[in-house]
Amino acid sequence: MIKRFTLYAILNLMCLCSAVSQGIELKWQIGYHKTETAQPAKWMPAVAPGAVQLDVMKGENYKQPWWFADNVRQFDWMEDVYFTYKTSFRKPQLQAGERLFFFSRGIDYQFKIYLNGKQVWEQEGMFTYVDIDLTGDLQDNNELKIVLMPVPKLGFQYEDNPGLYRSNARESAKPAVSYEWDWHPRAVTRGIWDETSLVVRKPVRISDVSVTYTLNEDLTRANIRLDAEGIGFPGNTFKWILKDPQGKTVLEKSGALASGTQGIESVLNAPALWQPNGYGEPNLYTSEFYLTDADHRILEQRTCKVGFRRIRLIMNESAWQARQPMPLTRATAPASLEVNNRRIFAKGSNWVHPEVFVGVVTPERYREQIVLARNAHFNLLRIWGGGIVNKESFFDICDELGILVWQEFPLACNEYPDKPKYLEVLEQEARSIVKRVKKHACLAIWSGGNELFNSWSGMTDQSHALRMLNSICWQLDPQTPFIYTSPVYGIGHGHYIFYDKTIDREVFQWMASAKRTAYTEFGVPGTANIDVLKSFIPANDLFPPKRNTAWEIHHGMGMWREDSWLELPTFEKYFGKPQSLEELVQYSQLLQSEGLKFIYEEARRQKPYCSMALNWCYQEPWPSAANNNLISWPNVVKPAYYHVAAACRPVLASIRVPKFEWREGEDFTCDLFLLNDSYDKIGKAKITVTLQYDETETELMTWECPGTEAFRNIQGPTAHIRIPRMKSNLFTIAVKVEGRSEYNSAYVLLYAGKDVQKRFPPKEYYDFRL
Amino acid sequence: MIKRFTLYAILNLMCLCSAVSQGIELKWQIGYHKTETAQPAKWMPAVAPGAVQLDVMKGENYKQPWWFADNVRQFDWMEDVYFTYKTSFRKPQLQAGERLFFFSRGIDYQFKIYLNGKQVWEQEGMFTYVDIDLTGDLQDNNELKIVLMPVPKLGFQYEDNPGLYRSNARESAKPAVSYEWDWHPRAVTRGIWDETSLVVRKPVRISDVSVTYTLNEDLTRANIRLDAEGIGFPGNTFKWILKDPQGKTVLEKSGALASGTQGIESVLNAPALWQPNGYGEPNLYTSEFYLTDADHRILEQRTCKVGFRRIRLIMNESAWQARQPMPLTRATAPASLEVNNRRIFAKGSNWVHPEVFVGVVTPERYREQIVLARNAHFNLLRIWGGGIVNKESFFDICDELGILVWQEFPLACNEYPDKPKYLEVLEQEARSIVKRVKKHACLAIWSGGNELFNSWSGMTDQSHALRMLNSICWQLDPQTPFIYTSPVYGIGHGHYIFYDKTIDREVFQWMASAKRTAYTEFGVPGTANIDVLKSFIPANDLFPPKRNTAWEIHHGMGMWREDSWLELPTFEKYFGKPQSLEELVQYSQLLQSEGLKFIYEEARRQKPYCSMALNWCYQEPWPSAANNNLISWPNVVKPAYYHVAAACRPVLASIRVPKFEWREGEDFTCDLFLLNDSYDKIGKAKITVTLQYDETETELMTWECPGTEAFRNIQGPTAHIRIPRMKSNLFTIAVKVEGRSEYNSAYVLLYAGKDVQKRFPPKEYYDFRL
Repeated sequence: MIKRFTLYAILNLMCLCSAVSQGIELKWQIGYHKTETAQPAKWMPAVAPGAVQLDVMKGENYKQPWWFADNVRQFDWMEDVYFTYKTSFRKPQLQAGERLFFFSRGIDYQFKIYLNGKQVWEQEGMFTYVDIDLTGDLQDNNELKIVLMPVPKLGFQYEDNPGLYRSNARESAKPAVSYEWDWHPRAVTRGIWDETSLVVRKPVRISDVSVTYTLNEDLTRANIRLDAEGIGFPGNTFKWILKDPQGKTVLEKSGALASGTQGIESVLNAPALWQPNGYGEPNLYTSEFYLTDADHRILEQRTCKVGFRRIRLIMNESAWQARQPMPLTRATAPASLEVNNRRIFAKGSNWVHPEVFVGVVTPERYREQIVLARNAHFNLLRIWGGGIVNKESFFDICDELGILVWQEFPLACNEYPDKPKYLEVLEQEARSIVKRVKKHACLAIWSGGNELFNSWSGMTDQSHALRMLNSICWQLDPQTPFIYTSPVYGIGHGHYIFYDKTIDREVFQWMASAKRTAYTEFGVPGTANIDVLKSFIPANDLFPPKRNTAWEIHHGMGMWREDSWLELPTFEKYFGKPQSLEELVQYSQLLQSEGLKFIYEEARRQKPYCSMALNWCYQEPWPSAANNNLISWPNVVKPAYYHVAAACRPVLASIRVPKFEWREGEDFTCDLFLLNDSYDKIGKAKITVTLQYDETETELMTWECPGTEAFRNIQGPTAHIRIPRMKSNLFTIAVKVEGRSEYNSAYVLLYAGKDVQKRFPPKEYYDFRL
Repeated sequence: MIKRFTLYAILNLMCLCSAVSQGIELKWQIGYHKTETAQPAKWMPAVAPGAVQLDVMKGENYKQPWWFADNVRQFDWMEDVYFTYKTSFRKPQLQAGERLFFFSRGIDYQFKIYLNGKQVWEQEGMFTYVDIDLTGDLQDNNELKIVLMPVPKLGFQYEDNPGLYRSNARESAKPAVSYEWDWHPRAVTRGIWDETSLVVRKPVRISDVSVTYTLNEDLTRANIRLDAEGIGFPGNTFKWILKDPQGKTVLEKSGALASGTQGIESVLNAPALWQPNGYGEPNLYTSEFYLTDADHRILEQRTCKVGFRRIRLIMNESAWQARQPMPLTRATAPASLEVNNRRIFAKGSNWVHPEVFVGVVTPERYREQIVLARNAHFNLLRIWGGGIVNKESFFDICDELGILVWQEFPLACNEYPDKPKYLEVLEQEARSIVKRVKKHACLAIWSGGNELFNSWSGMTDQSHALRMLNSICWQLDPQTPFIYTSPVYGIGHGHYIFYDKTIDREVFQWMASAKRTAYTEFGVPGTANIDVLKSFIPANDLFPPKRNTAWEIHHGMGMWREDSWLELPTFEKYFGKPQSLEELVQYSQLLQSEGLKFIYEEARRQKPYCSMALNWCYQEPWPSAANNNLISWPNVVKPAYYHVAAACRPVLASIRVPKFEWREGEDFTCDLFLLNDSYDKIGKAKITVTLQYDETETELMTWECPGTEAFRNIQGPTAHIRIPRMKSNLFTIAVKVEGRSEYNSAYVLLYAGKDVQKRFPPKEYYDFRL
């Protein structure tokens, strides 16, 4: 909620199309106090963007690093106090008509701003830009203060169920995850979390530029429109240039400017389309808009990228035909992404915070993680509603690398109320978010939030927050699909473990019998790599893992369930009690790798009814001991990452095996497939399935595969072998495609029997590159 | 879509709060022509409101009555021609500042209006009021013309599947039903269909009054707000009086008026709440707003009814706990109506057109049918999206009689496209509909339309029409629940027959194993009464029923399926070939009565998981030979009506029987319940179950029922008897409650065996009153 002490320009500034940053850097100090009006006892240097916790940690010599053992608990007291940021600056030389603004892309979460002791702004919400004209209140020497209120939290907590600390966030638009999750410590962020500076604005200036377009049905023609808003336009002129992905100018317009918004229209024939990863190039055009004076001298310029594409969320193939008993209920919700008139199989992951303290995330951090996603053949990231809406650079990089974005609003696993005050803040935040993010070619889906239609949240289609979000998205960005939450009807979340003792079923079994249109969360946990474990667990606690040590604080044990996320009983069921840290890590990572490989490939085998596979979760915000993630904090790849990447290759040979553990004399069978998510036609192929164990290799079957059409799988015969006696506990089923080794696959399974020797897969298994 | 040749006042006039009708009646003539600009060859008298078909029928001496045999086919040619309404009037005496308007509450469907040869209006859409200031174009003698375009229809029809004629309506906001349904002839209505007149408006006048309120959480206090819009307000005064249901003034305010909208606020403590039928009185307050001059003389007055109530659509009890396999999808959508903080069990029916030619429907027609609904203990009518949004008097009567209304927009069983032109018309119509209907206490649910999320429609949550309707309802009427369509997830539609040979199951079986949160369409067909049949079937064709006679034209045979709606194979399965019209009608009506009784009672037995039962359908727009309806056209009660009314009593004893047909020696069982939908606590009761056959009565069981809490059923023991040999083919299970005969129930079942004599139930069965 914004109280408009200064009514200036805020609405026009929601979506700055790559505004040239002309900011005057500010040097901040920070202090804390118990009441809103009290003065801090002392001031410490502050880093902005950042977080108050990190400033106090340095200023007061807290134990470091903050992520080691239980050091994060040092921050707990900060939730309930006020913080003040303070900075001083001399009034800059302002030319005639120039004005000085304070501009911030994000302050977390509820705050008041004072200039020379006078309140000039008040806001609740971290996603709405702050833009205040300070000119009228300037003195020669100025003091600017930002007073942060204590973090919002409802008063109740379930002492016996710490996971429900998230309820604290139930009446705010603040990401729920920082109140504690089963893979996130309680550490409620606060402070200046995105670019913030003073800005001098000229008397003639652009306040916003946006480029929109409509494509004709067969995508051969774009009607483009540039809307420019600004001040002092009349009497001046513009030039607008559009350059193609190779930098060649394909469109040029110029003319005189009138007041208000300028709508300039043009047509582009045969646009090079923006395609998601795996389906072509993510072509981006560059729009350059120049504000020029009557003599055509450039006064200001705005540049932004434009990707031409059409994205729809359509019914899954064959889902209309799914049989139901009378009385009939509705068909499943559409869950198949169509990009540029072609269905894609959406492969990817659930993106969470790359850092607990989101203010410190840089474009470089985003880039290194998104590049890994691109390299894993991912084309879709679901930005989970428990976390933030990322900074601009995140979307710029996704645009560039062809990664589609499913963006949720900051609601997760809570019953957000129909209360006017909450709805007012959420509306402000949602409008800011939509206006900003809708400009990006990568934006594929809006979603109200995470698991809101499940019992642990308790929201419904009638919840006012969700109807309002749907309406806002419809009003501001009608062409982008909107879903109330994930899962909607037909989509599945879960399971999150290799073996579920309550139903006595392994991942190989529950996943093969599942029938969902999209799997948008599923996981198999594995430990972090040994080096990562050593970086935050005190040496004495490393092995064996115990409760009340860093293993527990870092989510290895007792996370909502007794066994998560180490899953020691499952480990012991297959491998016995772990004898060393090395054994624990290697077998745990084997289970994660084989389990996730099965789920991704099975989801693809279920195409076309199934259209999507996104594991829970991609990375993590601090180092966990064991977790469902593929990448450890800060950016360390776990072995499962490589196996998932292999399972997401556009074309591969794949088998469905009925279970993980085998014994001598059992009849082993596996169903053979050639999976094709690409739009290439795949020719004839000779595919051989072999059993590799001890030092032996036995052929099960050769399939003369006739090839397959674009975007179609083909199922082959079922291979069989009677399991022989083996000496060691792991064996491999290898699937080889003659002359196309890039389609090969391999699956490591478990042999159980008397006097079996424990072995690990070779080193390459844990650092696997195709 | 409105083209604004006259930009006047249309938006302000969407919702007239019981405007005093000061209309100048017009005498219309009508003619038809093949091109838009051609002149009719002749003019005939026209009745308005009415329909062009009825005027031509009279003017050109068509065979009458139009509903007899296949006379309705005489109208077919009219779809593709233009019609013009014409009227003349002398310019009335206008006092200083007065203006003359042409005002219509509805013209069906696409038209242009000319005054003295000059086009003054153009509109597509029958639900948006027309309001045109004619003053500037008036001459002494004036001619007003309304030119109707041919009916909108897409060019394709499936010749082999006549039911799909409805596709003709796929790109318009015209009710789809008139393009033909399995119980509605093709007869596409057109013409002036609601009140239409000239109106003289004073220089000082009210253009709209609306009364809104918010209730506190426990409903003990209403903050009321009256908004008045008008012209010439400054310098004048107002008086506002609110009278309670007994006519006593409970609130009075007066003051000076400023320009623009006047928002007048007040508070009412302990409002007498509007309660739906079966849950208390439908209390209505009366708001009287007087526009007065500086000397407090009354210039104009507006009166409207206000019912204070809170309606929510909430999760069904226990639905959050329903078990699902992993991966989990969402929980069911909420389908339980809560009125004034209490859940109700919603009982009712699907309302269709009371007339093919909706223009002729009068308040009296509405009232007689709504009174019957009230008498049947109904509290909810679903206004099916294949038909119209009813005239104002419909909602007034529902307000008065405590009947909740589920109002659908005019979309049904089609894939309405994401096309801008269609969406523009739909938006205009939806805004008009919402602004008008939201003022009524009876309005409980908005719905996008009928069966849009099923394969035969092919729309989804992403369809632009539905997202737009949701957004419009959210913007204009956020407190009223909105669902995209019926069924949404968890709600069921079907079945529509007593016995389904494709699954070999009777209504008793499929319904008992169903598990839906709400049954919002279900049916069992029965023939019309003999007198009704004789009114439209030529005597020679009455028996036996044959194809290509009035039996078929009037939906008895070959309606989408070979057997609907006579269902002769089902009839013959139980009763053999019908020997007479009397036998056909009586057994058919027996099947309908017992089948519907079972479904309503079973839905109630499934409470609390189930919360709603609405049969398909309530009435019909012309006489059908056989149909799922309860009331034959024009208003003749079928026997099933009485049995449904009995099944909907707030409290009754009820049994679940496993099947309809029994043989000697079989073990008959039935589960016994005492059903209570009221908020009364029911005391101890002695309940006896007996078998009545031939002249014998045998007791199966007596249950000493301990009584039951408010709004809770109680299940008793299961009764048993071995079926004895019987002489006649029908027997009865009677359930009697000692001292509370109003809770008694009886069920007629079939006995099959050798030499069994056919009998009918007694006369009272077909004219049953409790």
